[in-house]
Amino acid sequence: MPQPLQGITVIDATHVMAGPFCTHLLRLLGARVIKIERPDEGDVMRHYDRDPKYAEMAPPFMAFNAGKESITLNFKSPQAIEIIQRLAAKSDVLIENYRPGVMNRLGLGYESLSAINPRLVYCSVTGFGQSGPLRDNPAYDHIVQGVCGVMELTGEPGSGPTKVGFPMIDTFTGYSAAFATMAALLQRAQSGRGQFIDVAMLDNALVLMSSMVVPFLTTGIAPEKVGNRGFNGSPTSDTFKASDMSLTLGANTQKQFEQLCSVLGCAEIAGDARFVNAAKRIANADALHAALMPHLRKKPAREWEKLLNAAGVPAGAVRSVPDVLAEPHLQTRNLVLPLTPSTQGHTGYGLGLGFRLQDNNLEQLGAPPLLGEHTRPVLSELGYSSNEIDALQQAGVV
Amino acid sequence: MPQPLQGITVIDATHVMAGPFCTHLLRLLGARVIKIERPDEGDVMRHYDRDPKYAEMAPPFMAFNAGKESITLNFKSPQAIEIIQRLAAKSDVLIENYRPGVMNRLGLGYESLSAINPRLVYCSVTGFGQSGPLRDNPAYDHIVQGVCGVMELTGEPGSGPTKVGFPMIDTFTGYSAAFATMAALLQRAQSGRGQFIDVAMLDNALVLMSSMVVPFLTTGIAPEKVGNRGFNGSPTSDTFKASDMSLTLGANTQKQFEQLCSVLGCAEIAGDARFVNAAKRIANADALHAALMPHLRKKPAREWEKLLNAAGVPAGAVRSVPDVLAEPHLQTRNLVLPLTPSTQGHTGYGLGLGFRLQDNNLEQLGAPPLLGEHTRPVLSELGYSSNEIDALQQAGVV
Repeated sequence: MPQPLQGITVIDATHVMAGPFCTHLLRLLGARVIKIERPDEGDVMRHYDRDPKYAEMAPPFMAFNAGKESITLNFKSPQAIEIIQRLAAKSDVLIENYRPGVMNRLGLGYESLSAINPRLVYCSVTGFGQSGPLRDNPAYDHIVQGVCGVMELTGEPGSGPTKVGFPMIDTFTGYSAAFATMAALLQRAQSGRGQFIDVAMLDNALVLMSSMVVPFLTTGIAPEKVGNRGFNGSPTSDTFKASDMSLTLGANTQKQFEQLCSVLGCAEIAGDARFVNAAKRIANADALHAALMPHLRKKPAREWEKLLNAAGVPAGAVRSVPDVLAEPHLQTRNLVLPLTPSTQGHTGYGLGLGFRLQDNNLEQLGAPPLLGEHTRPVLSELGYSSNEIDALQQAGVV
Repeated sequence: MPQPLQGITVIDATHVMAGPFCTHLLRLLGARVIKIERPDEGDVMRHYDRDPKYAEMAPPFMAFNAGKESITLNFKSPQAIEIIQRLAAKSDVLIENYRPGVMNRLGLGYESLSAINPRLVYCSVTGFGQSGPLRDNPAYDHIVQGVCGVMELTGEPGSGPTKVGFPMIDTFTGYSAAFATMAALLQRAQSGRGQFIDVAMLDNALVLMSSMVVPFLTTGIAPEKVGNRGFNGSPTSDTFKASDMSLTLGANTQKQFEQLCSVLGCAEIAGDARFVNAAKRIANADALHAALMPHLRKKPAREWEKLLNAAGVPAGAVRSVPDVLAEPHLQTRNLVLPLTPSTQGHTGYGLGLGFRLQDNNLEQLGAPPLLGEHTRPVLSELGYSSNEIDALQQAGVV
């Protein structure tokens, strides 16, 4: 069966994280992605901890750009603008993540390109969106983490601002941009027309945080830091120390709580008057933790994980990234995939989609492109002769 | 223009968070969503901090289920199974988030329903997926946070496991399931066939954490906690105290660093031999922080935010959820939307999509359904007579 985006061509005028992650997802669904890079150094993400083993490419760059084609273009040249216009005439989607107004000033805004190709879906990814007083602010993931409220929700009550330990908003915003692009392609299938999509990191951060944002909108009660406690608020939905490492428990219901005590070998705690129902357990949370702790310390976290899950009590040993990637479970998930082996013989790896689509079974991610590797063939497809391409190269346009 | 999913009917056999969030997104794109609930109490999320002002519905339930139709069905009854089968024959999508195997045992698995309707897209959302040794483990968001590695990445180096302060994996997994469903609908437009989709919270957590997971896969170097420092690792991409509250800075490049010192009124720091280039700033990070601190404490965070952003240095005052929602900026983003006013006259609110699709402009989210509010009309559409529906009600089937 053809992949979902088979036959779709995407112009990828993005750099670093959210934008390239968006086009990476479109690529995994079968789109052809033509990545536009600066002739001098290309996407700056090529160089984050770049590795001589991989032709000077950084591993995350490789994984997020595998299977894309790279062409170089110097946007300061009018000839480069013409190349994008010719490409836009033959493409389905353009994704860009420059600051608001930049593409317009170059003559590459939605109005200009949709005049050339009304079927073009045009998606702009920015920190704060195309409107509003913050629109011109530059943004990195951790800046938006500061602005969106998550740093005041993470960590123990009373702790200072705490950042989520990875660029959550970059990745999620890229995901959202890919989702929006697919929605616009579905709409185009009915209407025959493309459209403009405005994707902002701040908006997406708030959507990801919906379960904290939405109750506040309606009730006016501000959400607060709860440390490691689960959404349900039960004191037995929290993190505890086992004999070796930490363990998360999710004993929310009365039955789960009773099972927890039974598996831990302390059924008497379930019968204790201070802990007999959910309200009492919340009121006596510290005493309950103190009562459970010595029992939890009797076995290693992974042993509790097995025993408790088998008894219907959600439990998980707290793993590091290397720990979880070593789980035999993941080998069944088709999630960790090799890039195409590089010419140097060093294999890089990346991740596939977070879902398994029966008819889109991926076995590898493709080769990450060298800077400008596809300039010549792509320009040739657009009708440029070999002599013309040489001249563009000599003039520093490509 | 019709909405992207206009004409698409979704059977929503989900509860609590990831599943209902998925169908919420499909609903915002124009799908008709028929939510199946237990006759006795319905989706347990109805009751989390339920509010008498809103017909005993919890505010997050309201926002995630606005505009859906609710029908009650007791899956223990064979007649209920027949109702789902009749519904599946006329629907495009089914989303479910029971544990692996449950729908199969009910006769509602993909094989059974695709035999009735080969065009059906069938998406199963679980904690750990349909395969592998962990597949039967029950999961809540905070359990998967423990397992996926994020708790060992968040917080200051040396701190214990730290949970992201909101159910990030629930929401993201719902998002991913909606994305996968759209991909399958695009594929169906070409092939005429539906397919089975396996969506797991753990897989999605790792995809969201791609920028930490992927470099490790290729290099074998484990990612570590970096506190509030940005992805770039620069000591001036971090959180600092201003005179009133905290401020995130994103001075990554040499130019941004020099601009930072200039705006702070301490240009001499940029000239200090210990801080003249990125490598030296990393080596002397503590001294640099100490040098900058007294300057940053001279003005309030929001004033620095304005001055620094104007000078091209990314900066954001660290806001709480109420703070960010009070920003005039958000009023331009069409993100916070009212539900349809309830019959009690109390307006609830929710969030729209994290992107602005020019041709899918939402103005409200619709009414959250009362438990079973649409049982009668939906069954009537399926051909059940009024007498038959009465009988089903009396028998406790609906």
